[in-house]
Amino acid sequence: MRVLQVGAGAVGSAAVSIAARRDFFESYVVADYEFDRASAATPDARFTAAALDASSSAAVTELCQAHRITHVLNAVDPRFVMPIFDGALAAGADYLDMAMSLSTRDGVKLGDEQFAAAADWSSAGRLALVGMGVEPGLSDVFARHAADTLFSSIDEIGVRDGANLVVSGYDFAPTFSIWTTIEECLNPPVVWERSRGWYTTEPFSEPEVFDFPEGIGPVECVNVEHEEVLLIPRWVEANRVTFKYGLGTEFIDVLRTLHKLGLDSTDPVRVGGVSVSPRDVVAACLPDPARLGPRMTGRTCAGTWVRGTGLSGEPREVYLYHVVDNEWSMREYGHQAVAWQTAINPVVALELLATGAWKGVGVLGPEAFPAAPFLDLLTEYGSPWGLREER
Amino acid sequence: MRVLQVGAGAVGSAAVSIAARRDFFESYVVADYEFDRASAATPDARFTAAALDASSSAAVTELCQAHRITHVLNAVDPRFVMPIFDGALAAGADYLDMAMSLSTRDGVKLGDEQFAAAADWSSAGRLALVGMGVEPGLSDVFARHAADTLFSSIDEIGVRDGANLVVSGYDFAPTFSIWTTIEECLNPPVVWERSRGWYTTEPFSEPEVFDFPEGIGPVECVNVEHEEVLLIPRWVEANRVTFKYGLGTEFIDVLRTLHKLGLDSTDPVRVGGVSVSPRDVVAACLPDPARLGPRMTGRTCAGTWVRGTGLSGEPREVYLYHVVDNEWSMREYGHQAVAWQTAINPVVALELLATGAWKGVGVLGPEAFPAAPFLDLLTEYGSPWGLREER
Repeated sequence: MRVLQVGAGAVGSAAVSIAARRDFFESYVVADYEFDRASAATPDARFTAAALDASSSAAVTELCQAHRITHVLNAVDPRFVMPIFDGALAAGADYLDMAMSLSTRDGVKLGDEQFAAAADWSSAGRLALVGMGVEPGLSDVFARHAADTLFSSIDEIGVRDGANLVVSGYDFAPTFSIWTTIEECLNPPVVWERSRGWYTTEPFSEPEVFDFPEGIGPVECVNVEHEEVLLIPRWVEANRVTFKYGLGTEFIDVLRTLHKLGLDSTDPVRVGGVSVSPRDVVAACLPDPARLGPRMTGRTCAGTWVRGTGLSGEPREVYLYHVVDNEWSMREYGHQAVAWQTAINPVVALELLATGAWKGVGVLGPEAFPAAPFLDLLTEYGSPWGLREER
Repeated sequence: MRVLQVGAGAVGSAAVSIAARRDFFESYVVADYEFDRASAATPDARFTAAALDASSSAAVTELCQAHRITHVLNAVDPRFVMPIFDGALAAGADYLDMAMSLSTRDGVKLGDEQFAAAADWSSAGRLALVGMGVEPGLSDVFARHAADTLFSSIDEIGVRDGANLVVSGYDFAPTFSIWTTIEECLNPPVVWERSRGWYTTEPFSEPEVFDFPEGIGPVECVNVEHEEVLLIPRWVEANRVTFKYGLGTEFIDVLRTLHKLGLDSTDPVRVGGVSVSPRDVVAACLPDPARLGPRMTGRTCAGTWVRGTGLSGEPREVYLYHVVDNEWSMREYGHQAVAWQTAINPVVALELLATGAWKGVGVLGPEAFPAAPFLDLLTEYGSPWGLREER
């Protein structure tokens, strides 16, 4: 396996630090728009740094060909999904990402552009494994695992994400890309129901307090547009699928205000003699989440809550989850918890593809593959998952 | 009198529309960074449009000399106070503005830079009449009027500004320059007390509900940095001077959020290949207050609340105020209420200087002049003021 990873930001550099402890790959190219950032992320001689403009599919193809790449791991903002996805296929490489192609206000859903190319990937005998981070990603694996081993039928699957992370020294410091957070939180949230299919609601709809495990405790969660709602119903039987994010009141208030002022917009505005996207300006004003690790304390939890009928016909409700403590991830890997938790999953998936434990062609989500090998290997990596019976 | 007005924005174009109905001046040059904006603001042959970079004092001087200007009226953002103020003096012209030189975080107060030049203006025999809008401006005239005709001694003078304006069709649409509003609301508010002199407090301090007249009703007001607190104690005897602005809860929340995210900053940030000031981006995202008039309804009130001992030794408390109804100002002048209310006052002052009813040299505030001629001429302009006994 010869890997090209596109992006050496918070998640990308964490992925490299995880892959560096494994031996399933032959070579691993780390590319970034800024060569110095790629170079800073390469830990040993098995890794090569490269400069790449991820908005150019031709440049992606060219870099793949130059290094005889077999697998492209996309670790940049979802804005760049399509050029990287297209560039990988043109180069005859398999492809993985952690976020899917973006939705638009005229009805194009998350991932629609990628699924539209499914036949091309299948006929080329190539695999695009989409949404293979922690959420989407591990959350989808949990859904598969619940359907295969814990339930005879499922009523509702709800991905629930929450944390008790605190960043000292800043009035406001998001622990994840603000660009992506604005995108997923201010777009109309999508919900899937068997009888209605996919439909959208108002931002921040259906608030509920979810009690997160391992000391995190209750956090207010709201509906958010997320890939799992688009992925899970394609491969897992359920009556309803939702995604709720534990944003907390302060964050919701900030996002509402940004929206009210038009500062969430990606359409450029003229300022003096130049043209800028307001959302990029918001991101530029905030600290880089990749550098907040030393100032952070607390834990982050990703997981999938499932309600249905158990294997013996009993009512059952479980929460399958994965918690990362920031102090641990900083000490062990030098990367903050949210980025590290996202990054470990595509590395595990690459290893399963390298060993042949996972195989497939076309455009597939994580729930299209058997869950057990993934969950076992995740535990072998030193980061076990948990199951909490809810009733 | 030969006037150069610098700025043809919301306030500047309203000032021209008011001056156009008077005959106290010989010629009136309207200058703006954008010539087309200046040109669009000139209503008849007595007015001439010009292009001017207000950040260049040399350019201000040159334009004054070219048109033999006797009075410069500054109607642009307070960022440009010093070059216009200096350029006018160099040209031997008198000067008026509606906002004073800015404060800094290292103890330089509003107007300090201008008062530092007072001896130069006096020795040149020239007048700089500073803070001559509605607030500061008419509010200072009210303080003078109270001290001269209503009170034997004054305990406290509190300028209080509130409105019930609503803008339809926008989630959020400030009715005044957001750049200036951020500046005055997020800087530490200044308070003056006889025993302490000037001191600052936290933003949004000492909230109180003030009941505004003519149907506006109660509005939550908070301390804000404003020129009156720097001007009134120099000429009017009182124990305490404050300025409170009826921002309302939503606006305060927006300003707090902008500050929390660093979006109030004027220090440029790098975004992609360009460098921009976040505060300029916020302004660029919001609608132009000059164009909101047709969508606005309601009234705006500026006034000065005074508490002390009346002329017969009785406790007395009054609110001297000026209310403008947006429907009226749009119908009569085609300008929205907040801009029009600011603009009428320097035009009245120019006329008093033209007739000789007001005269002086040096750097002086509105309260350095007799109040009666101003209040009478304001009424003659068709925009009377009011007095409410508070007890």
